[in-house]
Amino acid sequence: MFYTDNILQFPVRVERPDPLFARALQQAIGGVEGEIRVAMQYFFQACGARGNPKFRDLLMNTAAEELGHIEMLATAVALNLEGAPLKLREEAAADPVGGAVLGGINLKNLLSAGLSAMPVDSDGVPFDMSHIYASGNIAADMTANVAAESTGRVLAVRLYNMTNDPGMKEMLSYLIARDTMHQNQWLAALEELGGAQDVFPIPNSFPQEEENREFSYAFLGFQNDGSEPVQGRWSEGQSIDGNDTFTSRAMKPMGEKPNLGRAKPSSGAQAEQL
Amino acid sequence: MFYTDNILQFPVRVERPDPLFARALQQAIGGVEGEIRVAMQYFFQACGARGNPKFRDLLMNTAAEELGHIEMLATAVALNLEGAPLKLREEAAADPVGGAVLGGINLKNLLSAGLSAMPVDSDGVPFDMSHIYASGNIAADMTANVAAESTGRVLAVRLYNMTNDPGMKEMLSYLIARDTMHQNQWLAALEELGGAQDVFPIPNSFPQEEENREFSYAFLGFQNDGSEPVQGRWSEGQSIDGNDTFTSRAMKPMGEKPNLGRAKPSSGAQAEQL
Amino acid sequence: MFYTDNILQFPVRVERPDPLFARALQQAIGGVEGEIRVAMQYFFQACGARGNPKFRDLLMNTAAEELGHIEMLATAVALNLEGAPLKLREEAAADPVGGAVLGGINLKNLLSAGLSAMPVDSDGVPFDMSHIYASGNIAADMTANVAAESTGRVLAVRLYNMTNDPGMKEMLSYLIARDTMHQNQWLAALEELGGAQDVFPIPNSFPQEEENREFSYAFLGFQNDGSEPVQGRWSEGQSIDGNDTFTSRAMKPMGEKPNLGRAKPSSGAQAEQL
Amino acid sequence: MFYTDNILQFPVRVERPDPLFARALQQAIGGVEGEIRVAMQYFFQACGARGNPKFRDLLMNTAAEELGHIEMLATAVALNLEGAPLKLREEAAADPVGGAVLGGINLKNLLSAGLSAMPVDSDGVPFDMSHIYASGNIAADMTANVAAESTGRVLAVRLYNMTNDPGMKEMLSYLIARDTMHQNQWLAALEELGGAQDVFPIPNSFPQEEENREFSYAFLGFQNDGSEPVQGRWSEGQSIDGNDTFTSRAMKPMGEKPNLGRAKPSSGAQAEQL
Amino acid sequence: MFYTDNILQFPVRVERPDPLFARALQQAIGGVEGEIRVAMQYFFQACGARGNPKFRDLLMNTAAEELGHIEMLATAVALNLEGAPLKLREEAAADPVGGAVLGGINLKNLLSAGLSAMPVDSDGVPFDMSHIYASGNIAADMTANVAAESTGRVLAVRLYNMTNDPGMKEMLSYLIARDTMHQNQWLAALEELGGAQDVFPIPNSFPQEEENREFSYAFLGFQNDGSEPVQGRWSEGQSIDGNDTFTSRAMKPMGEKPNLGRAKPSSGAQAEQL
Amino acid sequence: MFYTDNILQFPVRVERPDPLFARALQQAIGGVEGEIRVAMQYFFQACGARGNPKFRDLLMNTAAEELGHIEMLATAVALNLEGAPLKLREEAAADPVGGAVLGGINLKNLLSAGLSAMPVDSDGVPFDMSHIYASGNIAADMTANVAAESTGRVLAVRLYNMTNDPGMKEMLSYLIARDTMHQNQWLAALEELGGAQDVFPIPNSFPQEEENREFSYAFLGFQNDGSEPVQGRWSEGQSIDGNDTFTSRAMKPMGEKPNLGRAKPSSGAQAEQL
Repeated sequence: MFYTDNILQFPVRVERPDPLFARALQQAIGGVEGEIRVAMQYFFQACGARGNPKFRDLLMNTAAEELGHIEMLATAVALNLEGAPLKLREEAAADPVGGAVLGGINLKNLLSAGLSAMPVDSDGVPFDMSHIYASGNIAADMTANVAAESTGRVLAVRLYNMTNDPGMKEMLSYLIARDTMHQNQWLAALEELGGAQDVFPIPNSFPQEEENREFSYAFLGFQNDGSEPVQGRWSEGQSIDGNDTFTSRAMKPMGEKPNLGRAKPSSGAQAEQL
Repeated sequence: MFYTDNILQFPVRVERPDPLFARALQQAIGGVEGEIRVAMQYFFQACGARGNPKFRDLLMNTAAEELGHIEMLATAVALNLEGAPLKLREEAAADPVGGAVLGGINLKNLLSAGLSAMPVDSDGVPFDMSHIYASGNIAADMTANVAAESTGRVLAVRLYNMTNDPGMKEMLSYLIARDTMHQNQWLAALEELGGAQDVFPIPNSFPQEEENREFSYAFLGFQNDGSEPVQGRWSEGQSIDGNDTFTSRAMKPMGEKPNLGRAKPSSGAQAEQL
Repeated sequence: MFYTDNILQFPVRVERPDPLFARALQQAIGGVEGEIRVAMQYFFQACGARGNPKFRDLLMNTAAEELGHIEMLATAVALNLEGAPLKLREEAAADPVGGAVLGGINLKNLLSAGLSAMPVDSDGVPFDMSHIYASGNIAADMTANVAAESTGRVLAVRLYNMTNDPGMKEMLSYLIARDTMHQNQWLAALEELGGAQDVFPIPNSFPQEEENREFSYAFLGFQNDGSEPVQGRWSEGQSIDGNDTFTSRAMKPMGEKPNLGRAKPSSGAQAEQL
Repeated sequence: MFYTDNILQFPVRVERPDPLFARALQQAIGGVEGEIRVAMQYFFQACGARGNPKFRDLLMNTAAEELGHIEMLATAVALNLEGAPLKLREEAAADPVGGAVLGGINLKNLLSAGLSAMPVDSDGVPFDMSHIYASGNIAADMTANVAAESTGRVLAVRLYNMTNDPGMKEMLSYLIARDTMHQNQWLAALEELGGAQDVFPIPNSFPQEEENREFSYAFLGFQNDGSEPVQGRWSEGQSIDGNDTFTSRAMKPMGEKPNLGRAKPSSGAQAEQL
Repeated sequence: MFYTDNILQFPVRVERPDPLFARALQQAIGGVEGEIRVAMQYFFQACGARGNPKFRDLLMNTAAEELGHIEMLATAVALNLEGAPLKLREEAAADPVGGAVLGGINLKNLLSAGLSAMPVDSDGVPFDMSHIYASGNIAADMTANVAAESTGRVLAVRLYNMTNDPGMKEMLSYLIARDTMHQNQWLAALEELGGAQDVFPIPNSFPQEEENREFSYAFLGFQNDGSEPVQGRWSEGQSIDGNDTFTSRAMKPMGEKPNLGRAKPSSGAQAEQL
Repeated sequence: MFYTDNILQFPVRVERPDPLFARALQQAIGGVEGEIRVAMQYFFQACGARGNPKFRDLLMNTAAEELGHIEMLATAVALNLEGAPLKLREEAAADPVGGAVLGGINLKNLLSAGLSAMPVDSDGVPFDMSHIYASGNIAADMTANVAAESTGRVLAVRLYNMTNDPGMKEMLSYLIARDTMHQNQWLAALEELGGAQDVFPIPNSFPQEEENREFSYAFLGFQNDGSEPVQGRWSEGQSIDGNDTFTSRAMKPMGEKPNLGRAKPSSGAQAEQL
């Protein structure tokens, strides 16, 4: 069950409203690297967590935090939109700044939301909940969370670099710090699950003798000239999961030319295919 | 530039066509954990790779491999659909098996594709390319790839467990092995980039003194009663990136009650809001 | 800012796990009539509320309630999926019940989520956040909320009628009651805004003398034979907003045949169009 | 069955083509508040109408009207796009106006449609037909229609305020008037169905004694400090449906901590979860 | 402007309601091969038609026809759903037929629409208006229309073969006939535009001397072993547009290895990329 | 199986980076007329090809070519984005050019991809794989391919006309030539299948005596006044498939007023509908 107190988790100040920055901030709300994504991802991972119950608590606790981040960013978007023009005046053609601003914002922030935030990205594309990765495998979930916080912090840094507004920089400085923590937090969860050698390959409950071991630790090359693929840590030495040694070779096809044969009568194919 | 040879990377055999399993296999083609996702993700990461050029080669090489996996799975779907009925006969009501099969398949595999594979998931939802994570940050991309291969292998294992067809088990045993390798491969790439302590927090190019360090390594609690959040590796000890020590505490709001004030005239708000 | 306590708002019990009912329940999570929709709609309406601050509080308070409803339903889905088969055994063809069940579930609940809930509807289609209506006009938002709770309660009633599980009926009986309240709650908010005669037409801040008053209260007919359109309360008597009297008549086109003229050179049109 | 006469329902004139306004107008075509939405919503509600046949006629009649509105707006978009540049000339960097215009339009109006309208919103996002609410409950449909016409009129007013073109203002003045009528029309339909006290709670066919009446008219608070939620018409007095009296109180969780137990073997979970 | 008469274009009778067939019919409404697609495609092509005005009339006339087809099919879906169960009775586990039927329908037809049609496909995926191809090039539009009617007739034939209901077969026999006509109709339009030799390559307004003529009529091979690609009418003889002669050869890459260089500071890349 | 060589199929040079043109080029990658669409369409058509195996080879060969086109365009996007600003400096308001550029780009190319290409269109909308038309009918597939290459070449011509950069014009001149070939290639495939008279109506395997022949070659009018629809090649003379003669007439409805009767009890309808 959830509660609210109507107070922002961290101060949100905008000294100079900037509608273009409002558009950029939308990516941190409704972009695939944004806060709706992590809030809902942790929420659904929590709801589906099986096994040690501490992970459910950990996930739901941080879901609550992220909901507060959406609230902060939505406030920041609205405050930045204060400067947006509501009109395309006659003189618009002669006023490139106004035109550029109006052209540059997500017009839906004005037309659909009356100068408020929306659950869309910086190009006005609505967030699609298929981005909520909640696999039922706790380790796969944690790797997805590390990935989400990594692209999330990359985005926050880009936003931080894009603005000179002190209030916005202060807010983003907080959000970047939280992303630092969350990257570490989910990595720590992986460590608690045993670290790389216990965790991988995910799922670790599948008996590896049932996989085709000839290909489990081989770096395969698909270069047109049959040459060795580019070498690196992935082509030699012990595998990261500690279970074997990396090898490397060019791949040759092992199957046949696929042939589905003729189409069935009544299947809507062309007569020549029957 | 890409080339093909019309031969399957690995043999695809179906001993007993099973239209319900065809539906399940669609998840491995067009699901968010599927092969279109990784093929296109590595492709676009390669196209946007900056810095050490070996990562471009590594990524594009494995993109080529994954294209061949889509081809294998598409063949497997078509072969499994051979057993699908094309008719709802009059006796359908009396033939629960036929009805269940027809009810259970992605009907589009029949109606749109004539018993062939489609770029959709197991519920017939088309793949949405917003799932291609290619951030321009090589480490964020690698974490996204570990995550993709983790959910990918979880899916492949579930499919393996779901079928008894020897041909399908053999094919999946190969694909599971490749997922093992790819998890290790992207983890190895992270190691080549310096390992956890050098790589994290991502992006490592942002000066951490500009983030709000008070919150960078603090596990914050959002429990309604103000109690400590659930403890674990994430709440004490050295942070995984090696830059600080984890702490833990309940969070208190630091901001104010947000207030956007009154709406602008001409903004389409209700008169009471002006 | 949001808080959680890891306890369900209302008891969720499933006496007899039913995977098909789990599929149906998904509609109440990720369907357009579902709980993600209302939770996020009230959340974003709150974040964009301008004017009397009590509406922000009202909306955010109920957003918190709805988050708890998602949590309840996600738990109910997982509990109902306990009965789902993980295998398509050889004997599947001969076991219509198992086949029907496996064919009938959202296969992604198994393949993507490991027998847990997802933010998708009953056909496995992910929720699309464009369904969050938050217009910046408080009265338009309230009408959208009445509509959302109306389709929401219709859905909950259909689910209630579909199951015989006492635990599920008890849970739904609670959710139906909350929908009753929420319909009344948002209608009460409209009353607080002045009731139909003050609120409509939305937005009430637009001077009606600037609209084409000849058509503001005329029920227009588009019947092919030029006959009167079907009569009712909408074709006579005082308008509901109290501003005029309904009339009714067949419509005749007042414009011209549209003509865009010829295409521009270099516009990629066919030569015949230039 | 439908007919057309190739004549616009109302005159569409553009005195000064404005490509940015063309982009804004796209919201009224393919936005969620736009004309495709209402045309198709009334169409599908009509097709599924059961009970008194006059509602089918009412709905289909207005669907025909709305089709003509799409036609008008599509013409307006094309006429406004006449002024769009087809080139990014070398001097573009030095010509901020041209750049702003080209940057500001939905580029697809040029690249995909050759300076014509598309079924997309003002940010180029295609209309998604999941926004067609047609519930099979006539009253829920009518509330959805009131909501649709409310956000529709808000949008039309915003567009009206955005432009100074006399032709566009005249067209929008007509569309705003029709939205006034349609809000009143669907409210009148609700009145014909008995008004608020008969209609609500929707669906009124569900016996209220089967819902958990303790919660049917209680305004519940989810404030973190357990305080009373914000008071208003919704917290005291007779309920709007006339069936009871509003009360108000802080909510306490009534359920338990959810616990899904351990994961099943073969379910693709991590070994620690089994 | 559009008109309606509330009468079906062609009789719609269902002798034996079949909920699974209702699901299949949904593909003809909201599938990418369905009637919403063609109705809206012809509508938007008409609205954007430039040049000879007869094409606008032709397109809008047939758009009106297709709207009537949606109406027919929506009626057919509702009639077929009459047989759908509303309950998962206790005995469901023991009643595979009922379970299969309920499992097999688009559950949204029941839960969202109360046993009526929806603008979704046979797997419940909503129609996405990005499938409306209206290019502003009249010949490209006509080829898109031939393609749409081709997949449309393939679908209608598959539906015809799937059912034994005489009423449904009669309705589909009409729709198949109309698809025959429409394929011929759009081919005839291409002939009126001059036939293949005048129409192609589309757009025919681009001066072919500006394209890289070395590659305009060469069938290029991308076989891994450098062998000749598969020969056919496309590799020799006069080109279909009559402008040249087909040749055939294996392709060699002409570009270089792409190199984007190092990432910019402040671009959110990893330090190693800078 | 697929291979790569890391070399571009054709040189990609950008003399003057232009971020607005980068946005436009995105349409050729992730737009519905773009290269992902054709690459994946030919790929899936190949995977589902039944009958003469030469079509599988033809399709997969050209799929490989198109993958190389995506690679070229992605490189071109990244090179054009080199000129994009990373900051909204304080002076942005006074620097309309920078503001216009930043406002005009797909902000996601910066925020999500770090100045690289993405699988989205020119408005930032991700590509949706439902646009992959692979019908299982070889002739329907070929007509879909002609249509795809027609809109594809229209798009490439528009891009060519939009830029003055010699490198970009050279690249597009190559891509336009390939579209010329591909239009001819798929038309040649239709000729190899017998040409219009053998191929149409698609599917040609359906016995035309089972369709309602009265309507198979009649151009029907849906004009409101009952007048003849616009005449042309489609209303007289031999049908293009050679099977009959075109006729023309106004259509009259042949069905009845649809009537679904009353709603079922327990179906969630309003009491008045039961």
